[in-house]
Amino acid sequence: MANPVVPSAPVVPSAGVLTPLGLNAVRLAPGFWGDRQVLNQDVIIGHCLEWMDKLGWTGNFRGEPSRGREFADSEVYKLLEAMAWADDERFEALESVVTQAQEADGYLNTRWNGDRYRDFEWGHELYCFGHLIQAGVARWRRSGQSPLTETARRAADHICRRFMETPEVCGHPEVEMALVELYRITGADRYLEMARRFVERRGTPALADIELGRAYFQDDVPVRDAEVFRGHAVRAMYLACGTVDVAVETGDEALLSAVRAQWDRTVARRVHLTGGMGSRHAGESFGDDYELPPDRAYSETCAAIGSLMLSYRLLLATGDSRYADLAERTLYNVIATSPALDGRSFFYANPLQVRVPGKPSEGVSPRAESALRAPWFSVSCCPNNLARTFASLPAYIATATTDGIQIHHLTPAEIRHDDLVLQVETGYPWSGGATVRILQSPQAPRTISLRLPPWASEAKVMAGAATVRRDPALIHVEKVWRPGDQVRLELPVEPRWVRPDPRIDAVRGCVAVERGPIVYCAENPEEELVEVDAASPLVEHEEHREGGPVELEVAATTVRPRQRGWPYGEPANEPANEPANEPGERLNLRLVPYHRWGNRGPVTMRVWLPARHS
Amino acid sequence: MANPVVPSAPVVPSAGVLTPLGLNAVRLAPGFWGDRQVLNQDVIIGHCLEWMDKLGWTGNFRGEPSRGREFADSEVYKLLEAMAWADDERFEALESVVTQAQEADGYLNTRWNGDRYRDFEWGHELYCFGHLIQAGVARWRRSGQSPLTETARRAADHICRRFMETPEVCGHPEVEMALVELYRITGADRYLEMARRFVERRGTPALADIELGRAYFQDDVPVRDAEVFRGHAVRAMYLACGTVDVAVETGDEALLSAVRAQWDRTVARRVHLTGGMGSRHAGESFGDDYELPPDRAYSETCAAIGSLMLSYRLLLATGDSRYADLAERTLYNVIATSPALDGRSFFYANPLQVRVPGKPSEGVSPRAESALRAPWFSVSCCPNNLARTFASLPAYIATATTDGIQIHHLTPAEIRHDDLVLQVETGYPWSGGATVRILQSPQAPRTISLRLPPWASEAKVMAGAATVRRDPALIHVEKVWRPGDQVRLELPVEPRWVRPDPRIDAVRGCVAVERGPIVYCAENPEEELVEVDAASPLVEHEEHREGGPVELEVAATTVRPRQRGWPYGEPANEPANEPANEPGERLNLRLVPYHRWGNRGPVTMRVWLPARHS
Repeated sequence: MANPVVPSAPVVPSAGVLTPLGLNAVRLAPGFWGDRQVLNQDVIIGHCLEWMDKLGWTGNFRGEPSRGREFADSEVYKLLEAMAWADDERFEALESVVTQAQEADGYLNTRWNGDRYRDFEWGHELYCFGHLIQAGVARWRRSGQSPLTETARRAADHICRRFMETPEVCGHPEVEMALVELYRITGADRYLEMARRFVERRGTPALADIELGRAYFQDDVPVRDAEVFRGHAVRAMYLACGTVDVAVETGDEALLSAVRAQWDRTVARRVHLTGGMGSRHAGESFGDDYELPPDRAYSETCAAIGSLMLSYRLLLATGDSRYADLAERTLYNVIATSPALDGRSFFYANPLQVRVPGKPSEGVSPRAESALRAPWFSVSCCPNNLARTFASLPAYIATATTDGIQIHHLTPAEIRHDDLVLQVETGYPWSGGATVRILQSPQAPRTISLRLPPWASEAKVMAGAATVRRDPALIHVEKVWRPGDQVRLELPVEPRWVRPDPRIDAVRGCVAVERGPIVYCAENPEEELVEVDAASPLVEHEEHREGGPVELEVAATTVRPRQRGWPYGEPANEPANEPANEPGERLNLRLVPYHRWGNRGPVTMRVWLPARHS
Repeated sequence: MANPVVPSAPVVPSAGVLTPLGLNAVRLAPGFWGDRQVLNQDVIIGHCLEWMDKLGWTGNFRGEPSRGREFADSEVYKLLEAMAWADDERFEALESVVTQAQEADGYLNTRWNGDRYRDFEWGHELYCFGHLIQAGVARWRRSGQSPLTETARRAADHICRRFMETPEVCGHPEVEMALVELYRITGADRYLEMARRFVERRGTPALADIELGRAYFQDDVPVRDAEVFRGHAVRAMYLACGTVDVAVETGDEALLSAVRAQWDRTVARRVHLTGGMGSRHAGESFGDDYELPPDRAYSETCAAIGSLMLSYRLLLATGDSRYADLAERTLYNVIATSPALDGRSFFYANPLQVRVPGKPSEGVSPRAESALRAPWFSVSCCPNNLARTFASLPAYIATATTDGIQIHHLTPAEIRHDDLVLQVETGYPWSGGATVRILQSPQAPRTISLRLPPWASEAKVMAGAATVRRDPALIHVEKVWRPGDQVRLELPVEPRWVRPDPRIDAVRGCVAVERGPIVYCAENPEEELVEVDAASPLVEHEEHREGGPVELEVAATTVRPRQRGWPYGEPANEPANEPANEPGERLNLRLVPYHRWGNRGPVTMRVWLPARHS
C-alpha cells in the first residue's frame, strides 16, 4: 500500500474539515463490509456484466441496434466505475468498447446519437455523461491516466461548449457532481463553472411542468431557496451532492447551509426508520412531511446510495457526525438489504412492510417493486450502483485530519494516514466490541477518533494512558502511539424498542426493534396479525451469540379480527363497544435483521409491529 | 310523463330480480340530488363543452390537427351521453359533428385514423367505441332512433367483423357493457357474443406484461377465476359491469357469482370508508387487502362512478340491498365530493387526508392529484363522467317489480310504475324523516319497499293500516293504496363513531365520524395535530338544524410533539419511557361533511382522526 498524495476515493474535495481516505489508505478485512466487497468482486460485478452483455446494453457501444432504455449507457458507466475501483482487467476490456464510440466533438450517447438534446426532461444525456465522467475520474484516481479519463474530459469539454451559455439543465441531476470531480483532478475551472451554472439554473424553472410536477426533478424552486428534499429521491440526492461539491469548491457557505438545512428537515420528517428515502411509487419520490408508509415505502436502493454519497460529502465538509449516523443506518438497513446473500438478485424498492409473498422471477423484472429480489430489471440502475458502491466502500469508512484518523464505521480494516497505521478488529454490528491496534505511528501525538452512534451514549472506551476526550458523538483518544498499543471500544448493542413521532400517521400504534445499527423485522409467512407486548424483554437467540447475525424473540399475541362484509364501524345490531377483534394465543415472535429478510423464499414481512394495549 | 315500455335508463337488462325505472318514470325534485341534477344541466355540461371546444377535443372530429390524449374522443362521447339524457339541443349540435367523422366501414377514431389497432395496451380505440355506443343507446332510450344510434351500430358491426375471431382485447374495458346494451336495444345476438368473447379472453392473457403488471388491466387472471378486484380501479369496475351484463343476458350464473364474490372480498378489504376505490397513485389501482392509506387514497371519481354502475347492475340482478348500501355511500361521499358547489371545478382523486393545502389553478391541471379542485385536467374523464352520471341520476333511485316499487335512495322525487305514482318528500340526508305520498294507485295491493341502511336498524315506519314486513335491509309496506295515503319513515341519523378493522394498518389508532350516509372530516387550516376523545358526545351545531348541511363538534386535544432531528426512538440520554409528545389545550374540533371539504379555499383535511387514549 503506497502512501498516497491523491486519495483513491470517489470524492476528494479541495477544502473541508475532514480529508477523505481512499482505497489506497483503507483496506477492508473479512467482516460485514469486507465480505460484501469480496462478494462484489467475485459475483456482483460479473453478474451485472453478464446481464448487460446479454441484453445488448454493452453492445450498444459497438454500434449494434440500440437496446434498453434511454439511460442504458449510464448502467455501463456505473459498472465501469465499479471495475475502475476493483478489476483492472475487466475495466480495460469494457473501456475499449466505450471509448471508441465517442464522436469527434466529444459527444457520446448510443441512443440519441444523431438526434441530440431533443428532450431535456427525459433524454438523460447529461445524466449519462455524468456517470461516464465519474468512471473516468475513478480510473484516474485508482490507476492514473487512461483512455476513459481522456474520453471523459473530451465529453466534459463538449458539454461546456454546448451548455455554458444556454439556460438548459438535464431532467436527472448527476453531471454536476461529476464535473466538479473532474475539476478536482484537472484543475480546469470551466468544469466547476459549468457545474455551478447547472446547479443554479434549476428551479428558475428550466424544465416543463410534467404530470408529476416540476418538483419531480427539483425544478420547482431554486436550490438556494428550497427548504426540504422533494420529488424523485435519487434525483434529489444527486442534485444535493453536486450542490455540496460546488459550494465547497467555490467557498459558498450560503449554498452549503441551504443543503444542510434541507437535509435537517428531510431527516426529521421524510426518512424511513431504515434510512430509506422515498414514500411514493408514483414519481419514485419523497412524500409530504411525515408521509412515511411502511407498505408503500419506495426506499429505492439508488436513493440510499445517493444519500450515502451526500452524507459523506457533508461529513467531509463539516465533520458533523450526524451525517455518518445516517450513513451507517442507510448502509446496514438499505444498501445491505438490496442484494441477496448470494449477490445474484436485488431489491430495487425496499419497503418496510410486505403483505403478499412474492413470486420468484428468473428473468428481467419489468417493475421496480417486488416482494422478492430479482436478478435484473428493465431499469437496472440499482445492481450497477451497488457494484460501484461496494467497490469503493473502503473510502467511506474513515477520514483524516493533520493530527489523526477518524473511524466513522466500525468494521475490520487496516487504515493508514501518513505514518499512522491502524488495524480495526471487531464483530460489529453483531457484537459491540472493537479493538483498534496501532501498527505504526510517528513519534508525535496523534488522535484516534471513534464515532459514537446516538444509541451508544453508554459506550465504554479503554485506552490505557491515552488522553480521552468525549464530545457527544465522538470519542477522541490522543497519545504518542507505539506499535502494539490498542484502544478498546465497547458499544452497547442491546436490543431496544423504537417509537415513531406521533405525526407519522402510517405507523401510529406501532413499535419497531433495533439492535446496534440494525433494524429488525418479522418474517411472517402465515400472514397472521400479531400485536407485540412492547413492555416485554427482547431476547437474543442463543445460537447466534457466536459472531453471526443475531435474531431476537419478543412476546406477542395473535389477533383474530372478526370477519365482516364491511371493515368499518359496527354492523347493525352489534353493540358499539364490542371489540372488533379478539385476543388469540400468546407466542414468541421471531425477529430477524431487516437486511436479511426474504433470503429464505417468499414471505410476508413487517418492520413496524402493532403494539398491544395492556 | 308517459307510461313507458322501455325505461329511459343506462342499463335495461332483459332478466333480473328488479326492473329499472328510467328518467321517464322518476323525476327528481329540489333536494340533495335534484339540485345536483339541475347544477349539471345549468353549469357542468356547458363547462365541459367549453373546455373541450377550447382544447380542440371536439375539433378533432372536424378534421382539425389531433389534440388531447389518445382517449380524448371518449370524453366527447361521455358528454354526448350526458346531453342525450339532459339536453336535446346541444346533443343534436354535437351529434352532427361526431357522426360525420365515421369512416365508411364503421371505424371512428380521430387519433388513430389510418393507423388502426397498433397498440391494444394503450390505444384505447375499443374503449372510445364503448362510450360512443353508450351515448347512442342513451339517445335511443331517451328520444328514439337518431343518427348517433346508427353511428354506434355501424361501429359495433365494424368491431364484430374485426374482432369476433381474433384473440385481442382493449387495454381499457368499457366496450363490453356498451355492446350488451346495444344488444338490448337491437336484439342483435352478435353484439352480445362479441362482448362475451371480450370478457372471456381477458387474463388468458391477452395483453403484454407492462411495468405495472397485467393486473393493471385485469389481464392477470381470467374473469371467472379472479377472487378480488385489482389493478386500475376504473378498468376493474368497467370490466365487472360488462361481465355482469354478459352473465345476466346469457343466464350464466357461475359468471355472475364470480363477480359477486369479487365484490364481496373487495368491499370487505379494499374500499375506503367513503366507498372510494383505489389505494395507489401508481397505476391508479387497488392495493393489496387492507392497504387503505387515507393520504394516498386515490379514490378516483371515475372509479366511484364505475362502482355505482356496478352496484346498480348487481342490485337489478339480485335485489340484494348491500349493493344499494355501497351505492349510497359512494354517491354521498365520492360522487358528491368531486364537483365544487358551483360546478366549475372537480376532484379527480379523492383522498381522505391532505397534509398540505393546495394552490389554486385556473387552467388545465396536468395531474390528477390536487388538494384543491381544478377546472379541467389533461386527462379529464371525471368531469364528463360526472355529467353523464348526474344527467341519468333519476334512474338509480328506485326500481320496480310487478307488485310494487323499491325506493333505494331517499331523495325528493316523483316515481311512477304502471299505475302506481309516488311522491317522496324528505330532508335526507340532513334529516332522517321521509314521507312517501301516494298520488295514484291501481285497485289492487301494491308493495312500497324502502331500503334501510346498515346503520338504521332502529328506523321507525308509520304506514297506517298497511301490512309492514321487515327484512334486515328493507321495509315492505303493502296495501291497496288510495291517493293521499302516505308512508312515513324515520331513519336515525344521529352522528356515530366508526372504528376500522385492525388489519387496516394505515388508520390504526384512529376513529371517524358518520351521520346518516355522510362521512365527516376535519378541515384544519392550522395543520395542528389533534387527538379526539372518542368517548365524548358528537354535538350538532344549532345553526344547521333547519334543513341545511349539518356540521358537528367533538372534544379534542392538541398534541405538541417534541421537535427532534430524527423522528424515531429516543435520543441518547432521554429516558425511554418519556412521552414523545405532550398534551396541549382542549378544544372543540369542528367536523364538516367530507363531500363539502375544500370549498372554502386551501385547507388541510382528515377523515380519520387519531383517538386519544384516556
